[in-house]
Amino acid sequence: MAQLVLVPSTLELSAIGKQCFKPQTQCCMVNSTTLNLRTSKFPLKRVTFQRQKPLRSSFTVCATALPIGQDTPPQPTNGFDQSSSRDSSKRKRVMVIGGDGYCGWATALHLSKKNYEVAIVDNLIRRTFDLQLGLDSLSPIASIHDRVSRWKSLTGKTIELYIGDICDFEFFSAAFKSFEPDTVVHFGEQRSAPYSMMDRPRALFTQSNNVIGTLNVLFAIKEFSEDCHLVKLGTMGEYGTPNIDIEEGYITITHNGRTDTLPYPKQANSFYHLSKVHDSNNIHFSCKTWGIRATDLNQGVVYGVRTDETDMHEELCNRLDYDGVFGTALNRFCVQAAVGHPLTVYGKGGQTRGYLDIRDTVQCMELAIANPAKPGEFRVFNQFTEQFSVRDLAALVSKAGEKLGIDVKTITVPNPRIEKEEHYYNAKCTKLIELGLQPHYLSDSLIDSLLNFAVAYKDRIDMKQIMPSVSWKKFGAAQVRSVVA
Amino acid sequence: MAQLVLVPSTLELSAIGKQCFKPQTQCCMVNSTTLNLRTSKFPLKRVTFQRQKPLRSSFTVCATALPIGQDTPPQPTNGFDQSSSRDSSKRKRVMVIGGDGYCGWATALHLSKKNYEVAIVDNLIRRTFDLQLGLDSLSPIASIHDRVSRWKSLTGKTIELYIGDICDFEFFSAAFKSFEPDTVVHFGEQRSAPYSMMDRPRALFTQSNNVIGTLNVLFAIKEFSEDCHLVKLGTMGEYGTPNIDIEEGYITITHNGRTDTLPYPKQANSFYHLSKVHDSNNIHFSCKTWGIRATDLNQGVVYGVRTDETDMHEELCNRLDYDGVFGTALNRFCVQAAVGHPLTVYGKGGQTRGYLDIRDTVQCMELAIANPAKPGEFRVFNQFTEQFSVRDLAALVSKAGEKLGIDVKTITVPNPRIEKEEHYYNAKCTKLIELGLQPHYLSDSLIDSLLNFAVAYKDRIDMKQIMPSVSWKKFGAAQVRSVVA
Repeated sequence: MAQLVLVPSTLELSAIGKQCFKPQTQCCMVNSTTLNLRTSKFPLKRVTFQRQKPLRSSFTVCATALPIGQDTPPQPTNGFDQSSSRDSSKRKRVMVIGGDGYCGWATALHLSKKNYEVAIVDNLIRRTFDLQLGLDSLSPIASIHDRVSRWKSLTGKTIELYIGDICDFEFFSAAFKSFEPDTVVHFGEQRSAPYSMMDRPRALFTQSNNVIGTLNVLFAIKEFSEDCHLVKLGTMGEYGTPNIDIEEGYITITHNGRTDTLPYPKQANSFYHLSKVHDSNNIHFSCKTWGIRATDLNQGVVYGVRTDETDMHEELCNRLDYDGVFGTALNRFCVQAAVGHPLTVYGKGGQTRGYLDIRDTVQCMELAIANPAKPGEFRVFNQFTEQFSVRDLAALVSKAGEKLGIDVKTITVPNPRIEKEEHYYNAKCTKLIELGLQPHYLSDSLIDSLLNFAVAYKDRIDMKQIMPSVSWKKFGAAQVRSVVA
Repeated sequence: MAQLVLVPSTLELSAIGKQCFKPQTQCCMVNSTTLNLRTSKFPLKRVTFQRQKPLRSSFTVCATALPIGQDTPPQPTNGFDQSSSRDSSKRKRVMVIGGDGYCGWATALHLSKKNYEVAIVDNLIRRTFDLQLGLDSLSPIASIHDRVSRWKSLTGKTIELYIGDICDFEFFSAAFKSFEPDTVVHFGEQRSAPYSMMDRPRALFTQSNNVIGTLNVLFAIKEFSEDCHLVKLGTMGEYGTPNIDIEEGYITITHNGRTDTLPYPKQANSFYHLSKVHDSNNIHFSCKTWGIRATDLNQGVVYGVRTDETDMHEELCNRLDYDGVFGTALNRFCVQAAVGHPLTVYGKGGQTRGYLDIRDTVQCMELAIANPAKPGEFRVFNQFTEQFSVRDLAALVSKAGEKLGIDVKTITVPNPRIEKEEHYYNAKCTKLIELGLQPHYLSDSLIDSLLNFAVAYKDRIDMKQIMPSVSWKKFGAAQVRSVVA
């Protein structure tokens, strides 16, 4: 986030307010039992949190943090492993950057359940984006403080919380040295292609935030713990839509009688997707040069919202984005169907991509962590389970709607993106299967469940957010005004 | 430069002072005849320049700039075309970003001589790097103001001057709208691999400065003049050293029975080289999406210092870097030979790269500008004329030294970089030849001339700067201290 202050403020920002463009230098560490401020030279700044549903009306967190959940002592209510902090040294420590987001939150809970020591690092910017653009998750989500507090009360398990920006190396290095992770899982990036294509400040923010944040993670690993395994979220969108099979990260090429295995050529299609290509290149170099171990997970489009852990309590509920900026194909279609809006197929609808259930996202994370890359290895997994065209998805949702008595129509809207609408697409995804991934394939029952979820929160749907709002061609102030209009 | 303020200041910076890490928001436009402030909303900030050899003791430039060279009216002393400003509308307008640097200065003069209307945009940061690190060009160089003033007095030709940072879009868009370029030549990046490998702040600075600056150039073209041709300096170092032939930007791959032509896979080997890969990807996408026309010149290692234009007067003399941070192979070897220092071959010396004479750099620029890419085309040329290994170069310099009566020794020093020291290397470079490039191949006479140039400035050589100073492995505070020690 700090990067954005570099961008001279321009007129187009006036429409969306400026509060989010200030550098976020405030930070704190919260731990529901004790603060592990072991070797930190962490700045002792006072930070006041305003909680949505306060345990107290507000509370102050410093480097000598007050525990959260103090007045709701651990009351495990199920059969979870009750490891005390005493044996924490034996448990693998995983830092989940971006652990308040869609994939990050589900992953943090899943790893905590699986007996990892988990810390979440997050600057909560995803919530700020919603504030900026007047968006909201379909499902109501609790504050991150209430989320980890509820998890503690349900399971007895602590998730440490570091609120701050990984672009701020003073904050991040203090958090890293305090938590001493064995693995860093890095979801902490601006992850919307349309957001990155709104205007120049957001394009610059996306690239600098994502690239600088990831570089800081690499530098922290190099400086403080070279053996730490980086598990980085990439995207299948890095590859684009080549007319040949997409391999997992590398391709063996024979050319003019000689052969080499080289990084698979990338053809990203938004400033966001490009930022992930930049990350991949930077991480690959760091592995070669410093012996860092890294797994780059080129994830497909994630659908679904419920996991075993988020289902345990309404305060653990995950976010579900359906708007034209952060919502993704299948999730958006289910919400559109629930509210009686025709499914919005962009252009010809032949755009084919890899997809996966969020329950497989958390499974893949666990597999990558449990089977780390070797020192110096830059390992790339394609993380999806099935391929669908947009047309395929619309047909599946229509069919599921029929069963539930919902009449689902489909309309073609002008494609706001610049992309091929009919193309060859065949991407490999065998490495995670070899590690043991047991996919949840897209089924009628899953679509039913998503449709029912959407119907349950139907009253929260803002019809203004249904249509695509960001055009790859327009790019600029006028577009931002129309997005927030 | 603005990017560097984002990096929280760290202890390692204390050794080198902090003045250069302030954002450079001051800027001005200087024109030796009139200020073309046609459509600018340029901020009317007052800026005072302290000149090394003042025409007046100091002068103030605002948006209603005083002309420089006012008191030395045009006195053409040769047969140059004396186009007046009246017919400037017919002449192609080329903005040279980074026009105060090694390649940029030679290019700006050459284009001006060839009757282009030229403007230089530069934040003078290259000179600041020298101040930071205690380095200096072998040849004494005049201030940019004296340079363009001298050029005007010798040829009657105006080179407009915009002093400011392209990362500052307010400045850059004002400069762009004021000058209205037909072509933007973009040399304006941090261009040293060792500089980018010194420490975290410089790695971050290199990537954010280069990537954000280039994005701003793309956004200015998209917003103000979609037909403007971008000629961007890339580097052969983007390709790394694959075990197959290196093509010009793209490679046709047949894989599992299908064929596609894709971007050539990149394997850059420093944070600097990576920043250029990021640029290439961003530019490629912008061409596809917005129809921008761009030429990416993957330049090899440039040697030499004299061009027809810089030879015209000592105030037009180009810089020659010989230090371990900014100096490049052949130039460094000639300076080492001149001062009786053994040539420092890194490791086995089998590292092979493409090289070219700086006289060919300026020729290539002219060819790329005169034959622009088509709208939407992302064209890649490999810009070098010959391949040499480091061992080859050392042998050539030794032989040339012998002729001049200099006893040149060669030593092997531990390779500060992490790279292959023996490898296959065969890169294509036919496209510029097809456009008409007539190479100056490396000859004894060129090495003689470079050696003589180095001998002439022998007294200015700082022996502390001869050895390599930046290690790819060390990376961090200790290294910066040793560089400046």
